[in-house]
Amino acid sequence: MTALRIGIAGINGRLGRLCAEEIEARGLVLTGGLSRTADPARRITDDAAALARGCDVVIDVSHPDAIAHHARVFAEAGCGWVLGTTGLDDMAQTAVLAVATTIPVLQAANFAPGLTMLLDLARQLGAALPAGAYDAEIVETHHRQKLDAPSGTALAIGAAVSEGRGVSLADVKRVDRTGRRQDGEIGFASLRAGQIVGEHSLILTSATEQITLSHRAFDRRVFADGAVQAACWLAGRQPGLYGMRDVLGLTRGA
Amino acid sequence: MTALRIGIAGINGRLGRLCAEEIEARGLVLTGGLSRTADPARRITDDAAALARGCDVVIDVSHPDAIAHHARVFAEAGCGWVLGTTGLDDMAQTAVLAVATTIPVLQAANFAPGLTMLLDLARQLGAALPAGAYDAEIVETHHRQKLDAPSGTALAIGAAVSEGRGVSLADVKRVDRTGRRQDGEIGFASLRAGQIVGEHSLILTSATEQITLSHRAFDRRVFADGAVQAACWLAGRQPGLYGMRDVLGLTRGA
Amino acid sequence: MTALRIGIAGINGRLGRLCAEEIEARGLVLTGGLSRTADPARRITDDAAALARGCDVVIDVSHPDAIAHHARVFAEAGCGWVLGTTGLDDMAQTAVLAVATTIPVLQAANFAPGLTMLLDLARQLGAALPAGAYDAEIVETHHRQKLDAPSGTALAIGAAVSEGRGVSLADVKRVDRTGRRQDGEIGFASLRAGQIVGEHSLILTSATEQITLSHRAFDRRVFADGAVQAACWLAGRQPGLYGMRDVLGLTRGA
Amino acid sequence: MTALRIGIAGINGRLGRLCAEEIEARGLVLTGGLSRTADPARRITDDAAALARGCDVVIDVSHPDAIAHHARVFAEAGCGWVLGTTGLDDMAQTAVLAVATTIPVLQAANFAPGLTMLLDLARQLGAALPAGAYDAEIVETHHRQKLDAPSGTALAIGAAVSEGRGVSLADVKRVDRTGRRQDGEIGFASLRAGQIVGEHSLILTSATEQITLSHRAFDRRVFADGAVQAACWLAGRQPGLYGMRDVLGLTRGA
Repeated sequence: MTALRIGIAGINGRLGRLCAEEIEARGLVLTGGLSRTADPARRITDDAAALARGCDVVIDVSHPDAIAHHARVFAEAGCGWVLGTTGLDDMAQTAVLAVATTIPVLQAANFAPGLTMLLDLARQLGAALPAGAYDAEIVETHHRQKLDAPSGTALAIGAAVSEGRGVSLADVKRVDRTGRRQDGEIGFASLRAGQIVGEHSLILTSATEQITLSHRAFDRRVFADGAVQAACWLAGRQPGLYGMRDVLGLTRGA
Repeated sequence: MTALRIGIAGINGRLGRLCAEEIEARGLVLTGGLSRTADPARRITDDAAALARGCDVVIDVSHPDAIAHHARVFAEAGCGWVLGTTGLDDMAQTAVLAVATTIPVLQAANFAPGLTMLLDLARQLGAALPAGAYDAEIVETHHRQKLDAPSGTALAIGAAVSEGRGVSLADVKRVDRTGRRQDGEIGFASLRAGQIVGEHSLILTSATEQITLSHRAFDRRVFADGAVQAACWLAGRQPGLYGMRDVLGLTRGA
Repeated sequence: MTALRIGIAGINGRLGRLCAEEIEARGLVLTGGLSRTADPARRITDDAAALARGCDVVIDVSHPDAIAHHARVFAEAGCGWVLGTTGLDDMAQTAVLAVATTIPVLQAANFAPGLTMLLDLARQLGAALPAGAYDAEIVETHHRQKLDAPSGTALAIGAAVSEGRGVSLADVKRVDRTGRRQDGEIGFASLRAGQIVGEHSLILTSATEQITLSHRAFDRRVFADGAVQAACWLAGRQPGLYGMRDVLGLTRGA
Repeated sequence: MTALRIGIAGINGRLGRLCAEEIEARGLVLTGGLSRTADPARRITDDAAALARGCDVVIDVSHPDAIAHHARVFAEAGCGWVLGTTGLDDMAQTAVLAVATTIPVLQAANFAPGLTMLLDLARQLGAALPAGAYDAEIVETHHRQKLDAPSGTALAIGAAVSEGRGVSLADVKRVDRTGRRQDGEIGFASLRAGQIVGEHSLILTSATEQITLSHRAFDRRVFADGAVQAACWLAGRQPGLYGMRDVLGLTRGA
């Protein structure tokens, strides 16, 4: 079997570099990278088509503005597309959906297997335990440099619980904690401390019991690790839009 | 609609008494109880058939030795059977399966909705996160009077993870902690402290991330509450063998 | 030895009632209670002097407006005064300090031994671990009915850390979490869920380690229990102002 | 001011190497190292006297068999001695005590500031909260390669609680969890998972409250960091035997 050839769009970003390390640690072939500034000595090009031609799968952790263009050239090259770039506008997202009929695309906001599971289990807990009896609270802790709060992943957990409950997160989200708790609201709390990579907990509390789902990322490598795992899974698949749930073998209906 | 009529086998046990309180708190009809010593003033009989004739569903939290007899007389009476008695031998369990073709039977080792969910999610985590990469550890804390360790629920969590991993708990269970951890083993740790009703955690740890599922029972009423919820759900169902997963609407395939 | 005679000011409040139960559970003598509405059948008077005359120690969990009056009449009666009423204005607090030269007074915002310890240890951690290297965050969880946030105890923990660091909590308190963490700030997060009596954590995080101090109250009785323990300790002491730290035998210099 | 000159005995061990990195990260002078195999190119000698002559303080993370010899030659050289080597026999320990009349010696089993605090606070909790009412349990988690259980630090925490309670750990230590909890016993539980550097919790639980002290080491650098901090503190002190508590400014009487 020929080793999988992987390219990285956004190779000079923090996650891009970690993906490159992970590919080499696994003995896979890193065919090259894409960046705004080409650097032939390091096999880094500024031409997305050139990158795509040489590889089986591109891991894309670049910039939202580049996505519509990537959609076009990756479809033409026929490579797989592991897309972790976030912050896509509607037009970019539409382009992603369109090319998924031509090439296999795996889109995920987060590649950590444990977080993928947590989001899926959060939805199930939301569906099974009624909002009137189980108060949902989400707590996240990140390093002291982080500017936004709650974290994007905390909001994604809230959205997963809301989906399970059949409501919209926007209608039940509660960040400020003054005043009495309302039935069905989902509270968010944020801590900022040291160099913590990321910790999230979903806590569901009734009058008589409490169930908690927690995740800790020890090392940013967990995200690179998941992205490379996704690339290996995606290579040779039929065209379609996939997610990390597919990589982990979760059934759609679950 | 006529209020649901519920009887309790084992009404003088701790859980039986809590079930009686919960039935009254919900405005349902407690038709009577079954105990080795009859007490007509409190509508307690020592005749299982008499109990069964007067009610729609019997909640059975009695003794394993009584189960084969209950199977016979409850089937004859045609009532629903919520069976929480544990420690059944093979003959008793066979009798339970047999009558489930005649009456609706809901069997559960534990009626807490949160624990039912935890067991189900534990199985899914076992299936999705490979044993070679994710070390599983289970910690439980109970009150200082508890004699056995690990708790039955901790073992049930271990069995759920094992089922997800396609192995037998007996082959991977590890209680003693001296010596190096083996790949795939599931460790158990037990704490005994104060009057803690019951706390359980399943912790899955890889080199780069950790996911934890925890449950705390604040009050033993959570088990009675779930048993009565199960009785309400079971009334009028088709014959069959059900579990708490059905009460919570979990799909079989999940 | 004659059993200790204890009276309760504020006997009809929630904590007052629990104190009454605790006194009887311990086989001590409850001489009576003070309330705005007298109830001679239950030995409840509306006359503070009458209450004080009959007992060795009064546990005062009444109302801040009553404290200046209590100071006068308890000093006259010469009884011990366990003062748990909070929200005192400067005049009331001055009256308390003044009578502590005449009778033994034990003042505490909270009688739980574990919380008393936590506040003391929090101050020591603040003193030993520099604010520039250890980020302090305080998380509290209370029942869904609670209106204010952060809890008074969370603020007391923050004040203890600040005292250890030689700063004023007002200068470093941070409740809103948007934007980058500032050096030395103390963050607060509040969760509201179910019927949780009270949970508090102080988390100190550096780049390489984390130390956490947590407290959970399982039952409001912990506060009554501590108040009665304080009354037993106070009886027969020299006049002076004492705190729960003295009851627990903590040295002043610690 | 001349920069502090530090030598490392045991420089080729894991902790020795981290200490070397930390010294350079802080801009201090690493004068050289001691190892069984000399390596002049890296300024590593196999002669303890030669190492000691060139530096103000030696950080000693070597081997218990070498300690009696180090005591002799370090006293002769007059340097400070930060001693983190553990497993000393009585003769070695006696030699350490003897030279502390000649040179300043700082001995510690663990240099993490947070763990030093935890041990001190654990002793205070043991002294303040009676063993009859507060059940003590200690939980530790370490990486999957660790062979011994409970960890040395867990046992040190148990010894600190025991000291506070005025008992010997040997008399109250409990590792096996079968059978009813005895009054006053201190339970130990060990988890082994992933690459966790080290986590410890002391949990004290009464019928109505629970207080927990936890520590997490994110990175082994915390131990090197503390050792170098200790070396800076020790330089120029009077002869005597010191501990990490002195570095953190904790009063002896606390």
